[in-house]
Amino acid sequence: MGKTYTYDEVSQHRSADSCWVILYGNVYDVTKFVPEHPGGAKIILQLAGQDATEEYDPIHPPGILEESLAPECKLGPLDASTLPAVEKPKGEEKKEDEDAIMPLDHCLNMDDIEAVATKKMSKKAWAYYFSAADDLRSKALNNTVYSDILLRPRVFVDITKCDTSSTILGNKVNIPLFVSPAAMARLGHPDGEHGIARACSTFGACQIISNNASQTPEQILEGSPPDQVFGWQLYVQRDRKKSEEMLVRINRLTKIKFIVLTLDAPVPGKREHDEREGKNVGSNLPIRSSHQEGSSSTTSPDPKAASGSVASAMFAGTAGDLTWKTTLPWLAKHTKLPIVLKGLQTHEDAYLASLYAPQVQGIILSNHGGRAADTAPPAIHTLIEIRKYCPEVLDKIEVWVDGGIKRGTDVVKALCLGAKAVGMGRNALYGLGAGGIAGVERVYEILKAEIETTMRLLAVEKIEDLGPQHINARAVERDIYDGPAGLEKLSMWIKAKL
Amino acid sequence: MGKTYTYDEVSQHRSADSCWVILYGNVYDVTKFVPEHPGGAKIILQLAGQDATEEYDPIHPPGILEESLAPECKLGPLDASTLPAVEKPKGEEKKEDEDAIMPLDHCLNMDDIEAVATKKMSKKAWAYYFSAADDLRSKALNNTVYSDILLRPRVFVDITKCDTSSTILGNKVNIPLFVSPAAMARLGHPDGEHGIARACSTFGACQIISNNASQTPEQILEGSPPDQVFGWQLYVQRDRKKSEEMLVRINRLTKIKFIVLTLDAPVPGKREHDEREGKNVGSNLPIRSSHQEGSSSTTSPDPKAASGSVASAMFAGTAGDLTWKTTLPWLAKHTKLPIVLKGLQTHEDAYLASLYAPQVQGIILSNHGGRAADTAPPAIHTLIEIRKYCPEVLDKIEVWVDGGIKRGTDVVKALCLGAKAVGMGRNALYGLGAGGIAGVERVYEILKAEIETTMRLLAVEKIEDLGPQHINARAVERDIYDGPAGLEKLSMWIKAKL
Amino acid sequence: MGKTYTYDEVSQHRSADSCWVILYGNVYDVTKFVPEHPGGAKIILQLAGQDATEEYDPIHPPGILEESLAPECKLGPLDASTLPAVEKPKGEEKKEDEDAIMPLDHCLNMDDIEAVATKKMSKKAWAYYFSAADDLRSKALNNTVYSDILLRPRVFVDITKCDTSSTILGNKVNIPLFVSPAAMARLGHPDGEHGIARACSTFGACQIISNNASQTPEQILEGSPPDQVFGWQLYVQRDRKKSEEMLVRINRLTKIKFIVLTLDAPVPGKREHDEREGKNVGSNLPIRSSHQEGSSSTTSPDPKAASGSVASAMFAGTAGDLTWKTTLPWLAKHTKLPIVLKGLQTHEDAYLASLYAPQVQGIILSNHGGRAADTAPPAIHTLIEIRKYCPEVLDKIEVWVDGGIKRGTDVVKALCLGAKAVGMGRNALYGLGAGGIAGVERVYEILKAEIETTMRLLAVEKIEDLGPQHINARAVERDIYDGPAGLEKLSMWIKAKL
Amino acid sequence: MGKTYTYDEVSQHRSADSCWVILYGNVYDVTKFVPEHPGGAKIILQLAGQDATEEYDPIHPPGILEESLAPECKLGPLDASTLPAVEKPKGEEKKEDEDAIMPLDHCLNMDDIEAVATKKMSKKAWAYYFSAADDLRSKALNNTVYSDILLRPRVFVDITKCDTSSTILGNKVNIPLFVSPAAMARLGHPDGEHGIARACSTFGACQIISNNASQTPEQILEGSPPDQVFGWQLYVQRDRKKSEEMLVRINRLTKIKFIVLTLDAPVPGKREHDEREGKNVGSNLPIRSSHQEGSSSTTSPDPKAASGSVASAMFAGTAGDLTWKTTLPWLAKHTKLPIVLKGLQTHEDAYLASLYAPQVQGIILSNHGGRAADTAPPAIHTLIEIRKYCPEVLDKIEVWVDGGIKRGTDVVKALCLGAKAVGMGRNALYGLGAGGIAGVERVYEILKAEIETTMRLLAVEKIEDLGPQHINARAVERDIYDGPAGLEKLSMWIKAKL
Repeated sequence: MGKTYTYDEVSQHRSADSCWVILYGNVYDVTKFVPEHPGGAKIILQLAGQDATEEYDPIHPPGILEESLAPECKLGPLDASTLPAVEKPKGEEKKEDEDAIMPLDHCLNMDDIEAVATKKMSKKAWAYYFSAADDLRSKALNNTVYSDILLRPRVFVDITKCDTSSTILGNKVNIPLFVSPAAMARLGHPDGEHGIARACSTFGACQIISNNASQTPEQILEGSPPDQVFGWQLYVQRDRKKSEEMLVRINRLTKIKFIVLTLDAPVPGKREHDEREGKNVGSNLPIRSSHQEGSSSTTSPDPKAASGSVASAMFAGTAGDLTWKTTLPWLAKHTKLPIVLKGLQTHEDAYLASLYAPQVQGIILSNHGGRAADTAPPAIHTLIEIRKYCPEVLDKIEVWVDGGIKRGTDVVKALCLGAKAVGMGRNALYGLGAGGIAGVERVYEILKAEIETTMRLLAVEKIEDLGPQHINARAVERDIYDGPAGLEKLSMWIKAKL
Repeated sequence: MGKTYTYDEVSQHRSADSCWVILYGNVYDVTKFVPEHPGGAKIILQLAGQDATEEYDPIHPPGILEESLAPECKLGPLDASTLPAVEKPKGEEKKEDEDAIMPLDHCLNMDDIEAVATKKMSKKAWAYYFSAADDLRSKALNNTVYSDILLRPRVFVDITKCDTSSTILGNKVNIPLFVSPAAMARLGHPDGEHGIARACSTFGACQIISNNASQTPEQILEGSPPDQVFGWQLYVQRDRKKSEEMLVRINRLTKIKFIVLTLDAPVPGKREHDEREGKNVGSNLPIRSSHQEGSSSTTSPDPKAASGSVASAMFAGTAGDLTWKTTLPWLAKHTKLPIVLKGLQTHEDAYLASLYAPQVQGIILSNHGGRAADTAPPAIHTLIEIRKYCPEVLDKIEVWVDGGIKRGTDVVKALCLGAKAVGMGRNALYGLGAGGIAGVERVYEILKAEIETTMRLLAVEKIEDLGPQHINARAVERDIYDGPAGLEKLSMWIKAKL
Repeated sequence: MGKTYTYDEVSQHRSADSCWVILYGNVYDVTKFVPEHPGGAKIILQLAGQDATEEYDPIHPPGILEESLAPECKLGPLDASTLPAVEKPKGEEKKEDEDAIMPLDHCLNMDDIEAVATKKMSKKAWAYYFSAADDLRSKALNNTVYSDILLRPRVFVDITKCDTSSTILGNKVNIPLFVSPAAMARLGHPDGEHGIARACSTFGACQIISNNASQTPEQILEGSPPDQVFGWQLYVQRDRKKSEEMLVRINRLTKIKFIVLTLDAPVPGKREHDEREGKNVGSNLPIRSSHQEGSSSTTSPDPKAASGSVASAMFAGTAGDLTWKTTLPWLAKHTKLPIVLKGLQTHEDAYLASLYAPQVQGIILSNHGGRAADTAPPAIHTLIEIRKYCPEVLDKIEVWVDGGIKRGTDVVKALCLGAKAVGMGRNALYGLGAGGIAGVERVYEILKAEIETTMRLLAVEKIEDLGPQHINARAVERDIYDGPAGLEKLSMWIKAKL
Repeated sequence: MGKTYTYDEVSQHRSADSCWVILYGNVYDVTKFVPEHPGGAKIILQLAGQDATEEYDPIHPPGILEESLAPECKLGPLDASTLPAVEKPKGEEKKEDEDAIMPLDHCLNMDDIEAVATKKMSKKAWAYYFSAADDLRSKALNNTVYSDILLRPRVFVDITKCDTSSTILGNKVNIPLFVSPAAMARLGHPDGEHGIARACSTFGACQIISNNASQTPEQILEGSPPDQVFGWQLYVQRDRKKSEEMLVRINRLTKIKFIVLTLDAPVPGKREHDEREGKNVGSNLPIRSSHQEGSSSTTSPDPKAASGSVASAMFAGTAGDLTWKTTLPWLAKHTKLPIVLKGLQTHEDAYLASLYAPQVQGIILSNHGGRAADTAPPAIHTLIEIRKYCPEVLDKIEVWVDGGIKRGTDVVKALCLGAKAVGMGRNALYGLGAGGIAGVERVYEILKAEIETTMRLLAVEKIEDLGPQHINARAVERDIYDGPAGLEKLSMWIKAKL
């Protein structure tokens, strides 16, 4: 440990046989770890023999280095004077003069916030946040579906009072908004997920912590008031042990009130902006020839093998064999927290979920921000589908939505249709990218004001008084699935197949 | 009073503790007035210690200065020679050579008029007139809804005669058009509301005077012929006394035939063009942190606190606690004039209004020019909704519409669907901006000719003969609200809640 | 007559009191004629004292000068040497090098033809042909309605034979196309209407001669084969005598098989492209203040007063008092030719027309090329409306359509829906503008080939076998008028009002 | 034969009377062949007296020269030194630096592939592949119809296994994709149809060999594994003998499992991009005056006469007199292979086809890539139409679709609606143009990965489990033909007319 390493020494070790990297000024031998890296071997080998701190830092929670590596892997400090002078690669530079960027208080809406964040963030972060599947059709639909719904303002009612408070699984929130589990917040700003938590605290909103957060749950929760409401997202790992260990840790954190089991991305969608950025940054290694596997891929999908996109790194290790019958009982053994299932996109699955109450207490209608299957329906479609085929679901469990929220009117429309809470992922991340904690606070400030204005113009004082009579969703209703309900078949399916 | 002040002296007094301003060459100590300024303290403090005439003049009726300030506040004349040489701020300059602007008689339609006005007016005036809520969706819908309705021209009928005359609440008009209550006309042109009145007189149209006119009602009516038809818009003030005093004044003016009680903007919508202009012109004072209020804003909404937009200044003082049960009886005590309710956007509210006849004799279906709730329905939606759910309303009270009128065909389509009169706000203001009285006259000249051509091509001689058989509104009808009528519930609601 | 005039002499006479003009090298005193000029006084006065040949020639049939003026008005020849050197005004110059223009045989479709014509014609001619009412919505709809109809090609049928011949009112045509009565062909090319006739002869198509043709009927028919089919359009003149004299002349021309009574433009629509061109070329005379007439214009509409557009000149003198009850009997007295009513836009009027068979033998569903009422329905709408409400009309009289034809598929779709013939105005005029006779022939060559290809791909050999089973018009059907049929009311209306 | 010819000698023979061309360094006297050239005389005469190798080679299968010409036509070798120095015509040059073109592994989707191919191919090849009929409406619809269908992803199902294998007429394929019979592959890349076959082999896909392939069937099949599945497309020739000879040859090739009888282009559609390219390259010969034929073209359509487009050359010789009654029995005499009918676009024809089972074992719903009748319905329309009117067809015969496939989601949607296999023409050709065999492989690699991701996100393991419950096609269903089914009439029609 007493030895100090030079950059030249490190740079000899750049293969799978002997792979060293520099992190935070120390030299590590990660040769043994390379094959089991959740993000795939390739991404490490690209950085072998070099200082990997800049790439490593924003996407790994502090402390995970020590957790993952045996002590002997830490070889010792680097002699910093031996580092070559570096030029920042172009994609990582700030793209514009800070001066030319709109100040936060001049940002009037989510588009302004996104524009500022796009200017301030690295291209890699932008590509990861912005990207969605294929041709971005679901991403686009997520927002336009709200525009297609008209409001029905009422008049001549006293609107001096307006109260946006509500509850989420019985926990009081000042505004029925939650941050969808969005990964890698430190990619956008060093304040990271903890910064989002701070802003949520200011506005009394709920935050769902991503399984792939760039900070640990403990770090994110640090300093939050006792009544702040958090959920924790679980991506079940192929190696169930890892998930079980995480659950033990989560069960200890009393501010975490529920587990969100994400189901809508058992494999990642094809996010081309993210992939292109990965290709640009990545090396010229040949990509996998997937066709050599023949027609039937009987092994689990292996996103590790895809090119160096953020998403592909993140999905490595995620289990694809979750089922109603096996996963919920397993989960019951490892946590008493209520379960919220995320990513339901049909009335059939919503109905199934409602049969699993009370273990399951909520569902999030979500197409994963348009990032999973392109042309998957927006959450509002699924919500109207539920109203049409099995409205009783809305009584049995809480139904939340996310995706495409740009305006307070969007939030209010979702609530009118029966959503108990409304989630946003990109808005929070863009807010963070635009100005750290203050940026996320600006996001909430704008949306809260817009929600209040909308409620007042609908002549509604309390969230619970919003209802379908306040909107005209006819232009959307005519596009909703119109096939057989299939609910009887579902019971049979449950018995037969699960 | 004998004393003459220098600019340097005045410029010492630029705080809430001692606030002087120069207006029309005189120096005023407005310290005591600052906290009670209807437009908010901030907007005055921004101009403290300076010559505020240019900002003050176009948005305040002459005489209101004397009404509002105690005599001792007028300190005395300014020594004009001490004024610093000023450069006109860029936003206030005329943006183009007058020569390059299309002459009025070459303007063939409302878009031409708007284009000319946009070039001639200050950016502040343009931003105030042009702006609408959020993403301008309702503003856009207001017009496109007319394009989606097809005409059904009839042929082989004698069309040598064509008569556009009609009545508005029993008062004869030569054309069934009214100027919607549009504030701050002098922002666009010194002819102001009085200029609009002059043009209305030429064409026999009706004018509704804004509560926030930049001239007094008496000034606006001056010189108008005895049979010219006016209405007066009431924004009920939180301080009811102020409204009652205004009503006393209005009751005296016999040309004012009705009171328009505006209900569609109890809080202003979010008009970003206007807000951005306010931010550009305004100072760098930090904006309000509204979130410090917590989730429930139990006090009346306080638009004063918003940044220096025209709208925010204007809405200060407006009451948010109007109700069917309390406001109409109060109003009955203070005026015998018939009441027209403005801003109804649902068949439910139209139905309710019809129950209040004969005190209420008319309603204006309006989404406030798209300036209140974005994605609120265009007036034509509400009109078709009334035809569908409670057509008897059209027999009991007059139903007027406004918003989005660009063509004579638009006017005729609204009349075919049962509107008794059709209002325009921006057209009049843009006409004024494009050429004062002559500009507004050009607006009417164009529209009257278009209305006559349309009537002739429909083979209809008189306004009252226009009917739904003359149009095909099917493309719009399929988007109309299709939920439960809720009219029975309404009676209960009236008993229970009001 | 012996005297020769100098330009200086002529230029002294430029007022209504003494108005001389030079035409074709001769000097005329038109003082007495000015007030009775069908195109209005203004347009002559603008050219008073000058050589008006260039403006006069392309819009007046040869010979009409002698017809209209007393012999003494012709003062004598001009001394050509006294003419000032003239620079061609910019709008009248050819806009591009002839070399850069696509040759006719490279033009593959109507858009190519229009593009070439636009480059070759004067701006005035382009503006007159191109223009349509208001915002060009009906003009645009005229074409897009065809795109929205899908074909239903059939296969495995012998398609070696394909026969486009048909009949029009019993007269054989080689292709069921007619040239809609389009005015002022010589504006676009000196070949004029006679050139169109020549091209129609080559392809066996029908031509309807415009009442406002720039050549006389006799000139147009000259040299045409005995079996060529012509119709003649009648715009009934306020001065009925003039129309009666024309009918006497027409009755003598045996190739003219029917009279088309145009009903869809009793007043001209507002054609802004044409009007703008008129304003640019016209003088700075103040335009009419129409509002001085008050609300009721009880006199006939006076388009003469409008600015110097081609349309306004052309509509002067047209009667607005035509009716089912009075005009058809009058017409019966003056011609035995079958009558075709042009410009029907509702099933009601189509139904009424069918009651007037056998005097009325056909109707042309037309919105006047989108030039009359903007947002009037495309002919295809009216055709489907007839199929829905009163399909018997299709058995009693021939139903033709025009407007928006761009492709052979458009023609075939109209025929499938029951149209007996399909008309085109602009295509013929653009063809003429693009290359005189050869240009119009190219138009027919392209369309005939497209029609044949479409018929073959539908597996249909003969025009009469085309039917609704060959198309899918569902996307259009859902926009068709859906109100009460009103056919019973029509009988009453006929009795009561006519 | 011993004689060597000079370029000057050859260039004397450039007329129909004596026509020599140089091909692959030899001089041929093709005078006798000119009138019977399937692609028309004109196209040869344009190259008479010159070296035609560059034009000839990519569109003729090797060996066909010897097949078509008598031995004495081959005059002898050219003295290469006498050839003039040539400059490559501009349209034929590679249009961009190869360096600036995206490498294949960076191509993420079909649009990338098309963009690369567009840069690499000759303009002539691009124009031929890219072009579609008229205004490209059917071509555009072919793709957008897929976007309008939403997916219905299911969750909480084990998706570790995913099997894309299926069968085509009982033959196993690893992926239910086929290459539509696309002509002239060597225009795009020298690897030609054989290259496509190689890529199909890698991925276990099916290939339908075009009747107009630029390589012989034997060449294309060379080296393919015994279980690779091929079909062969038959364009029946007017000279039936030629087709019969081809069938003899095809019957011998055991890897060819079925005959695809193409019915959707008995005449070619009007492909303007292709035609324009033909006009640019072609000479200035006057085009045919088709109107001289009169209204009835009782002879077979003669596409030979059209300008020098690739399509026009290719369609020469194709029979237009195929019928259900005569062609299928004739075919039965010449092959025992199952027949697949290509180009059905109505439920009526699909129903008819099903009556001809078991000779007919499949149909391909196709509008010929939008290249035949513009505004013909996309295959998905016809598929839904079949589901609506005669779903039993799907049980009796296999129904395949092609046209507009851009994404794996498109493929999956077609399968969900009941398609047994999905074809692509342009994708394969663009892949070839982008990189030969490797380019086509990249096309399959991308689509296979997308299909697997989509299946996993729908929670479907096997192709046969995909069904209508996995999609929401409501937005498309409302546009489907809604007229009378006409199936009873069809039986009558069969009896009466066939």
